[in-house]
Amino acid sequence: MGETDRLLEVIRGRNAKTVGLQFPVGLRTKAVELAREIESRAGVTCLVSADPSFGACDVAEMPVDLIVHLGHAPMPHLRYNRVFFYDLPGPPLASLAFIDAAEPLLPNRVGLLTTTQFRHWLPPIKDHLERKGHVVRIGEPDRRVAYAGQVLGCDYHTATVVEKDVDGYLYIGTGDFHPLGVAILVDKPVIVADPERGTARDLKEVRDRVLRQRHAAIARAHDAQTFGILVSKKIGQGRMDMALGLKALAEKHGRQASLFLMDLVAPDLLQGYRVDAWVNTACPRIAIEDVLQYKEPMLTPQEFEIVLGEREWTDYRFDEIRA
Amino acid sequence: MGETDRLLEVIRGRNAKTVGLQFPVGLRTKAVELAREIESRAGVTCLVSADPSFGACDVAEMPVDLIVHLGHAPMPHLRYNRVFFYDLPGPPLASLAFIDAAEPLLPNRVGLLTTTQFRHWLPPIKDHLERKGHVVRIGEPDRRVAYAGQVLGCDYHTATVVEKDVDGYLYIGTGDFHPLGVAILVDKPVIVADPERGTARDLKEVRDRVLRQRHAAIARAHDAQTFGILVSKKIGQGRMDMALGLKALAEKHGRQASLFLMDLVAPDLLQGYRVDAWVNTACPRIAIEDVLQYKEPMLTPQEFEIVLGEREWTDYRFDEIRA
Repeated sequence: MGETDRLLEVIRGRNAKTVGLQFPVGLRTKAVELAREIESRAGVTCLVSADPSFGACDVAEMPVDLIVHLGHAPMPHLRYNRVFFYDLPGPPLASLAFIDAAEPLLPNRVGLLTTTQFRHWLPPIKDHLERKGHVVRIGEPDRRVAYAGQVLGCDYHTATVVEKDVDGYLYIGTGDFHPLGVAILVDKPVIVADPERGTARDLKEVRDRVLRQRHAAIARAHDAQTFGILVSKKIGQGRMDMALGLKALAEKHGRQASLFLMDLVAPDLLQGYRVDAWVNTACPRIAIEDVLQYKEPMLTPQEFEIVLGEREWTDYRFDEIRA
Repeated sequence: MGETDRLLEVIRGRNAKTVGLQFPVGLRTKAVELAREIESRAGVTCLVSADPSFGACDVAEMPVDLIVHLGHAPMPHLRYNRVFFYDLPGPPLASLAFIDAAEPLLPNRVGLLTTTQFRHWLPPIKDHLERKGHVVRIGEPDRRVAYAGQVLGCDYHTATVVEKDVDGYLYIGTGDFHPLGVAILVDKPVIVADPERGTARDLKEVRDRVLRQRHAAIARAHDAQTFGILVSKKIGQGRMDMALGLKALAEKHGRQASLFLMDLVAPDLLQGYRVDAWVNTACPRIAIEDVLQYKEPMLTPQEFEIVLGEREWTDYRFDEIRA
């Protein structure tokens, strides 16, 4: 049964009259088409949520009977209210050439990692690598992650849980951010096998460049007097207790800190406030990936601890939101 | 008693422990300072809302005991929950030179209009113009507007309520949008007296240029097949019933329409959807002021009716949200 058929059953079962649809940016092209199909087949009214959606941490509040969230796997520890996670069929594993490209870069004992999109590729890739003599581990998920071997931009549990059993990682996917988190968190090589480009690469250079950027941000914030601590409104990104703790820590060290609550974090939304540096407790990607877009230094909580002298540079930690 | 003292009394009276602060863009420079003052004087924790705030139609939902909303007068018809409207002292009326600059452009019978910022200037300006022989009217507010003579970007009641008694309007303020709404809504001259520039001008040219832009947008949307109808999440901008009515009207005319729910409406948030034209039921400014920023035509509800043939070009109406 197709996923739309399963959704139609849920709509009927709940007697929903209004349905909200939430798409990540890459799936916006499908929005009107899916809304129309659901409206005509289920006799409901659809509302497309046009607020950006970044993950299962970020489910819109909508005045509807059922929200359909596409493109992300649910976070097991969150209590979702009337949310249907539409499970998109991932692409087929057409070729193992990109794995073969990665294989010479891999150590013998390797941990497999990916995002929800490619999760169904992990078993055949494991078999393939084992046939080539590798010892392969796929880490079991935690309360924030749905699938074995899945990593989020904020939770690398499936990497760290197998850390002692492997000498490096193979990440299956297209972007830098997820494997970068592993490369910074764990002092072992991370090899990226990219199914779109069909190529493989070691993440060491990217890791070193980002760490230099992070140290530069910490240095720029060294003498900052007034900090703005960002707290997210999103269901799976809120870390108010951490933010309050960081504010108290700042004040203990004679610095000023104000709390800023927001939904979407974006450079133009932070302009004009008289703040010397930002500390981000929302999605960890914001401080790392968008670093050059913000006028003031944008720090992670752990980097803020370094600025305050509460943590050593040698104890640098990648920010995660664990449940 | 200053407004901050009045706020501190309210905080004490409610025994509030957490206070949210909501600033319009122009007041962001005061945010950290006010948050700090309230924290130190009231012993509370402040949260600055960093989601943009555009009016009293747009009060943030925040997990706090009291929200402090700055820069806008409350809308009488809305039920606000734990909101303190911080009434900023307006600037003093230092000189009437800008009124004297406007006076030769005015008809004998004139209606006075302004925004909340300058509302306390209206009585002395009325006196001044009456001494020069004018008949001056200041329209009483409706359920959406707090003060006599005040206009909102979405409610021009204080202009239309005196329409029969005046031959033109004098608007006191700095921007174009509010008086533009009056100039399009009412077929009478609108003169702007700008206290910052100290100058006056007739709005006729701006009005004619904007009407040409609006007709161009309508023409561009003429053959559109798929419309995206925007509905706001904001407390004072939601017009779901209107949006549903427009969707039904589109379908009656053989066009497709999907509903899009969102908080902040911005060009990049609407990119990628397969929509030929947008219809905006959120803040009326969006279609008019930001017209050139959107790739697809952005229509008001009344303009959409013209596209569908349900309204004549000669019956062009400026969009308002009336309560």
